[in-house]
Amino acid sequence: MRIIDIRERTVPIRSQIRNAFIDFSQMTCSTVAVVTDVMRNGRPVVGFGFNSNGRYAQGAMIRERFVPRVLSADPASLQNEAGDNLDPAKVWQAMMRNEKPGGHGDRSVAVGVIDMAVWDAVAKIAEKPLYRHLADTYRGGDADERVFVYAAGGYYYPEKGNSALQDEMRRYLDLGYSTVKMKIGGESLEEDRRRIEAVLDVVGEGRRLAVDANGRFDLETAIAYAEMLKPYDLRWYEEAGDPLDYELQSRLADHYEGSMATGENLFSMQDARNLIRYGGMRPDRDILQFDPALSYGLVEYLRTLTMLNEHGWSARQCIPHGGHQFALSIAAGLGLGGNESYPDVFQPFGGFADGIAVEDGYVRLPQDPGIGFERKANLWEAFQPLLG
Amino acid sequence: MRIIDIRERTVPIRSQIRNAFIDFSQMTCSTVAVVTDVMRNGRPVVGFGFNSNGRYAQGAMIRERFVPRVLSADPASLQNEAGDNLDPAKVWQAMMRNEKPGGHGDRSVAVGVIDMAVWDAVAKIAEKPLYRHLADTYRGGDADERVFVYAAGGYYYPEKGNSALQDEMRRYLDLGYSTVKMKIGGESLEEDRRRIEAVLDVVGEGRRLAVDANGRFDLETAIAYAEMLKPYDLRWYEEAGDPLDYELQSRLADHYEGSMATGENLFSMQDARNLIRYGGMRPDRDILQFDPALSYGLVEYLRTLTMLNEHGWSARQCIPHGGHQFALSIAAGLGLGGNESYPDVFQPFGGFADGIAVEDGYVRLPQDPGIGFERKANLWEAFQPLLG
Repeated sequence: MRIIDIRERTVPIRSQIRNAFIDFSQMTCSTVAVVTDVMRNGRPVVGFGFNSNGRYAQGAMIRERFVPRVLSADPASLQNEAGDNLDPAKVWQAMMRNEKPGGHGDRSVAVGVIDMAVWDAVAKIAEKPLYRHLADTYRGGDADERVFVYAAGGYYYPEKGNSALQDEMRRYLDLGYSTVKMKIGGESLEEDRRRIEAVLDVVGEGRRLAVDANGRFDLETAIAYAEMLKPYDLRWYEEAGDPLDYELQSRLADHYEGSMATGENLFSMQDARNLIRYGGMRPDRDILQFDPALSYGLVEYLRTLTMLNEHGWSARQCIPHGGHQFALSIAAGLGLGGNESYPDVFQPFGGFADGIAVEDGYVRLPQDPGIGFERKANLWEAFQPLLG
Repeated sequence: MRIIDIRERTVPIRSQIRNAFIDFSQMTCSTVAVVTDVMRNGRPVVGFGFNSNGRYAQGAMIRERFVPRVLSADPASLQNEAGDNLDPAKVWQAMMRNEKPGGHGDRSVAVGVIDMAVWDAVAKIAEKPLYRHLADTYRGGDADERVFVYAAGGYYYPEKGNSALQDEMRRYLDLGYSTVKMKIGGESLEEDRRRIEAVLDVVGEGRRLAVDANGRFDLETAIAYAEMLKPYDLRWYEEAGDPLDYELQSRLADHYEGSMATGENLFSMQDARNLIRYGGMRPDRDILQFDPALSYGLVEYLRTLTMLNEHGWSARQCIPHGGHQFALSIAAGLGLGGNESYPDVFQPFGGFADGIAVEDGYVRLPQDPGIGFERKANLWEAFQPLLG
């Protein structure tokens, strides 16, 4: 069995969001198909992948560096021991040939997209949902049948005030979410205090609200916000400073006893390890948000989970960024703490299978082989041009 | 005055080198021209740039993300206060619009190439060699008229043994270099010991030899090599472990009193700062090798130098990776400790101006406006297609 083709196509991500750093209307997304010669139900197995939001499509890098290395590798060198499926770790090694260590950005997205498609193909060849395949492979079959998801949003509405923000949060609760996340740092601290109190009026208690500064604070501002946030006992206080400023994160922990979260802008096991070594993160309460789709895929994420275990961290402290079905499958299969969700935005890539509603803040997974893309109609449609 | 066009063209880097991680025969290089409407000697000023070796060309990223942002910016927003030249920091800000923090790889190369070309244009508009422009702007005119350079090579010759290695090193001495660098870690420790002694027979003393492990050692191996290297009193022991494994670097310092060097695979001020904070590097002896061409250019390198100063480091401890004229100009203009050089390889991008020989391990710079690319015939020829 072998990979016979890997195709990439760049498409826009439809979103009118703007956060502290970027205007998402300009974002692009790489879609990828890994075509195998394995037949299931009379058709060749094809795995699909895409990059999640916040970073750009990597079509040229995928086509020029990573695909040729995989397609030129001896097919036997990419198989599992039984020779009846792909070994994602071996495909990963083939992709990273002639790549120097360090410099984990963009490249990590290109590899992550292909890795996602490889895992989709592997689960389809194994004729299992990916989350069951992962649970069977790594956890003795112990899968979570439902995963905690929270609704990330809470945008600024400069023209409309806090009633528009409250309406947005009410919509998330109506969709079945128990926990929501809102942006902070885009206005003054006092204005953010008023926005937080407006959202708390809707969601009822601090444990149902997380806040996200998108990495924009210096230490002084981060501490000032920590003091302001304390009395609300929030779910977490996210990405206060620059993602690589571990000292800021560590010093902030001296000023904030509640949960903190970060990691969506760290793209390798080595970067994640530095956060754990130097960031003062607390395994009993803090949340790690590494996004496997942006970070060299699940092969690297497995290394990160091993590293976390060696440092005394439970996988339950991981709630990945990105709001996609890949991370959802990983969460259910490997026992993570949950998964992000962006209701309605980043379509067609954000969100989960059609017809499976969020209930009390948890979502179930489809039982189809693979990641479940076939059960999300608009995403499935977006992949079709790859098969043309 | 304004930038009227930015063009990119990808070309191969001619090299048959293979190190611990990569086969350089597959490397590519982005060449860039920044075309302005400023006239000098009857022709529009054009600045040129390229990425140095070890990372790949970034043509798609340059064309799709960075160039459109610069060309769509209000020209006045990219000028210095007098309005008579470009302000590289403002061009840099325009390039980084809609880019999230963290993830410093590949993107840092794309921005670095354009930044190099912007500085070349700026110096040409100022009608000065870049190194003089930098000295005038940042050091009260105090430029170094000659820069320490060392010959990096010392490859493995599996078929030919140590006499080929000695021949290579003799050639470097004949070219005027006083100090050479060789690879280690490609064979056993005992074989490397014999190779080191063979090179010392040629160069005469340990202070004239540095060794480079290209990031391949775990801590145990790094320490074993440290013990082996100690008696030779070498110039430095370079990149023992993974570039982001600051703990390895720091623990290794407990076992090696001599100089160590690292940093060529760190691509931002934030990553460099983490090395300084956590890597146990010693400001009185260790060497920092951040390569401005791969690391968002000189605008970011100036931030790194400021950070180093705040942490008690002299710019003299910086000897950039890459062996290119851009880093040479920065070394002379900002008082770095020297610059890498790869005699004969990575052509036409490696090396300095034609007709200026290395003397006693130092090289002088041409006096033409800009970085001096016009004085390196094969490089100048490689840029010509950008003007077509």
